[in-house]
Amino acid sequence: MKACILSIGDEILLGNIVNTNSQFLAEHLTALGFSVKRILSISDDPDQILEALDFAAGETDLVVSTGGLGPTSDDRTKAVIAQFFDDKLVEDPIVMQDVQEFLARRGRQMNQANREQALVPSKAKILRNRLGTAPGLWLEKQGTVFVFLPGVPHEMKELFSTELKPRLKDHFDLPAIYIRFVHTLGIPEAELAEKLQDFEKTLPQNVQIAYLPSPEDIRIRLTAQGQDLRKIKNQVDLLLENLIAILDEAAWGLDNDDIQTVVKKLFVANKLTLSTAESCTGGNIAHMLTTVPGSSEYYRGTVVAYDNGIKQTVLGVKEQDLLTHGAVSQPVVEQMAQGVKKLMNTDFAVATSGIAGPTGGTPEKPVGTTWIAVATPTGVVSKQFLFGSSREVNIRRASATALHMLITQVRKFKK
Amino acid sequence: MKACILSIGDEILLGNIVNTNSQFLAEHLTALGFSVKRILSISDDPDQILEALDFAAGETDLVVSTGGLGPTSDDRTKAVIAQFFDDKLVEDPIVMQDVQEFLARRGRQMNQANREQALVPSKAKILRNRLGTAPGLWLEKQGTVFVFLPGVPHEMKELFSTELKPRLKDHFDLPAIYIRFVHTLGIPEAELAEKLQDFEKTLPQNVQIAYLPSPEDIRIRLTAQGQDLRKIKNQVDLLLENLIAILDEAAWGLDNDDIQTVVKKLFVANKLTLSTAESCTGGNIAHMLTTVPGSSEYYRGTVVAYDNGIKQTVLGVKEQDLLTHGAVSQPVVEQMAQGVKKLMNTDFAVATSGIAGPTGGTPEKPVGTTWIAVATPTGVVSKQFLFGSSREVNIRRASATALHMLITQVRKFKK
Repeated sequence: MKACILSIGDEILLGNIVNTNSQFLAEHLTALGFSVKRILSISDDPDQILEALDFAAGETDLVVSTGGLGPTSDDRTKAVIAQFFDDKLVEDPIVMQDVQEFLARRGRQMNQANREQALVPSKAKILRNRLGTAPGLWLEKQGTVFVFLPGVPHEMKELFSTELKPRLKDHFDLPAIYIRFVHTLGIPEAELAEKLQDFEKTLPQNVQIAYLPSPEDIRIRLTAQGQDLRKIKNQVDLLLENLIAILDEAAWGLDNDDIQTVVKKLFVANKLTLSTAESCTGGNIAHMLTTVPGSSEYYRGTVVAYDNGIKQTVLGVKEQDLLTHGAVSQPVVEQMAQGVKKLMNTDFAVATSGIAGPTGGTPEKPVGTTWIAVATPTGVVSKQFLFGSSREVNIRRASATALHMLITQVRKFKK
Repeated sequence: MKACILSIGDEILLGNIVNTNSQFLAEHLTALGFSVKRILSISDDPDQILEALDFAAGETDLVVSTGGLGPTSDDRTKAVIAQFFDDKLVEDPIVMQDVQEFLARRGRQMNQANREQALVPSKAKILRNRLGTAPGLWLEKQGTVFVFLPGVPHEMKELFSTELKPRLKDHFDLPAIYIRFVHTLGIPEAELAEKLQDFEKTLPQNVQIAYLPSPEDIRIRLTAQGQDLRKIKNQVDLLLENLIAILDEAAWGLDNDDIQTVVKKLFVANKLTLSTAESCTGGNIAHMLTTVPGSSEYYRGTVVAYDNGIKQTVLGVKEQDLLTHGAVSQPVVEQMAQGVKKLMNTDFAVATSGIAGPTGGTPEKPVGTTWIAVATPTGVVSKQFLFGSSREVNIRRASATALHMLITQVRKFKK
C-alpha cells in the first residue's frame, strides 16, 4: 500500500518551523505497513492545494494531509476540499457539540470562527478531535483515501492514534508488521555491526535489522513483516532476547524507553535515592532526570560545580588533588561523587568532570576527555572517556554515558 | 523568483529522521528573496528522482536538492542526474584533490567509494565541500537552475553559506530583502499585538511584521523588501529602534541571540559572577548557561535542591518558612537565591521554586505556580508566575523567565 504525506501551511515554506508532523506520520504509517512514497509541503494557496491533491491522488492508496483546518482566515483548505470532492460544506451536529463542549470547558464563548469549525464536506466521515476545535476528515475519491488532520502537533498525534489508526487497519488489507527496538550505549557503530555479524546471519528473510545512531546512543530496530501477527511477534521477541543477551550491559532499554525513565523506574522499584555532581555536563543530567514526572520520589538534587573552589567547599574535593591531577581526573571525579552522596545523603551518586570544549584542551587531555564516577553503597567506580570535538555533543554523550554507568552499577548492586 | 526544495533519502520517508535540512533551506532561500513553492521528499529510487526533477523543473526558477550524494551504494543520485541532464560522469581533478586532502587530514586511505566522489556530470559547476567528500553541483536545464548538495546537515549548511549563497545572488535578479528580529518575553501574544497596534499602523507597505511564538518567548520579525538594500536597511533599523523602545524591558535580544548568550555577554562585559539554585527547573537553567562556550568565565554553578532537607542544609533555607509557607513561596525562593549567592560567593544569583506538574498542584497553588527570585549585590527581588499544565513547557518557561528577570536586574544595577 502506497501513501503520500501532505503538509499545508505557509510557515513550513517560509522555514519558520521544522516539519515534525511529517516525520511522525512517516514513522507511524511505515509501522502500519504502508510504503510512504512522497512527503510534500505546500502553501495555503487554493490552487497549490488542488494541484497537490491531484498529484498525490494519481499514484497512492492513501493521502494524509495536515494543517489548514484552523479557525483563522489563512486556512482555506476546507473550501478547497469541498471543491476537489465535488461536494459542499454542511454543519455537522456532532462536531458542533464537540466544539461547544471544548469551549465550555475553557470558559470561552462561541464565535463565528468557531462555529465554522463545524462546517464539513457532506461526504466526509468525521474523526473527532478531543484536544481542539478542528475535526479530522476522511474522504474517498477514485479508490484513494484522503485524510485531513489539524496541524497542531499534539492534536494531530492524538487524532492519529485514537481515530485514524484503527480505521486504517480496518479499511486497508495491510501486511502484519511488528517492530521492536533495543537501545544500546557504549559500543561504537562499527564494533556493534561486527559484534552482531553472526546474529544478522540468523535473521530470517522477513526480518530486517537497522542501526539508528544519535549523539547519545544507537538504537537497533528489528522489523518483521508477514501475514500472521502472532507468528512474527513470537519470531521477533525471541530474536530480541538473543540480541539483548549478546549486547549484555550495553543494552539499557527497549522500544520507547528513554534513559532517564529507565533510571527512575530502577530507583523507585528498589527504593533507592540518587544525587549528582556535575562539572562538564553543567546540569544536563539533573535536567534530564527532572523532566520525568515524579522524579522527586528518588532524586535529591545536584551540585553543578563549575568552579574549583566550589568543588572544594561544597563537595569536599581535596585541594591537593585538584592541584596535582587537575579537575578532569580520577581522584577529583571520585571525590565529587562521594562528596555529593554524603552531602545529600543518598544511596547512589554520579559525577562528571571533563573538557566540553571548544577550548580548554591540552595534548594530554584533549577536548572531549571526560571522567565519570558512580558512588555506590559499597564504594566508587570511575572510567575515562574520549568523546568528540563538539561542545553540545560532548555534553549529551557524557550525560547519557553517566546514566548508563549508573544503571549498570545499580543492576550489579541488586544482583 | 520561485524555488523548490527536494530531499532525497529513504530515512526521511521511513520517518527515521526529522527533515531539518529543508527547514534551513526554506528559511535561507526566503531570506534571499526566493518564494519557496514546494518542499518535496522522495526516496533514493532512480525513477522517483527523475519524476521529481521533472515535476520541480516545470514551474520553478531554482531547485535545491539535498541528499543522495554520499559514497555508499544506496546513493544513486549522481547517475540519475547525469541521465536527466543528458550528460556523463567524468572525474574532476579539483574534487579529486579535495577528497585526497580531506582523507589525508584524517589519516584515511583512498578507496573505490571515495574515488567515485570525484565523478561529476561534465556540465556541472562544482561547489567545493571543505567538510566532507561529496561536492555540491550546479546545473541548468531549460532556464531552471538545479543545485545538488550533500545531505549531512553541517556540510550542507557550510556549502550553502560559503559557495551557494554568493552564486545565487550573482545569478538571479533578486529583490533586496532585509530581516531583523526582536526577542521578547513576559508579554502574552494577545497583549503584545494590542501594545503594538499603533506601531503596526506606522509600517510602510513594503515592511511586514510577524509574531513567532515558542514556549519560551515570542520573536517579532520585521521583513522589508525593496530595490535598494541600503534604503530598506535604514528603514528597518529605525523601526527596530522604535519597537525596542515600546517593548522596553520585555525586549531581551536581537536576531540570532539566545538568552543564555545574552546573559553571558552581560556578565563577562561587566565582570560579574553568577550562581543559581533550582527546584522546579531541575538543572535546566544551569544546562542552558553551560551550553555556551566559556560560561565558566562568570558562572560558578548551581544547587538543584529537589529535596526540602537540602534546601535547608545546603542553601540555608529556614525550616520554619518551609513549614509555614511551603517550598513554593516567596520567603523560600528568596532564601534559596541568597543562600546560593553566599555559598558560591557570587555577585548575582537566581532561584526557582514551582510546581512543574503533572501532579503536586493544589487549589491555592495549581500546577504551573512558580516563584522566581534574583539576588543582587544590593538585595533580592522576587515574583510569582502561573505557567501552564505541561511539565516540559513549565520547565522551559520558568528557565527563560528566570534568565529574563536576571537580565533586567543586571541592566538596572549597571545604570
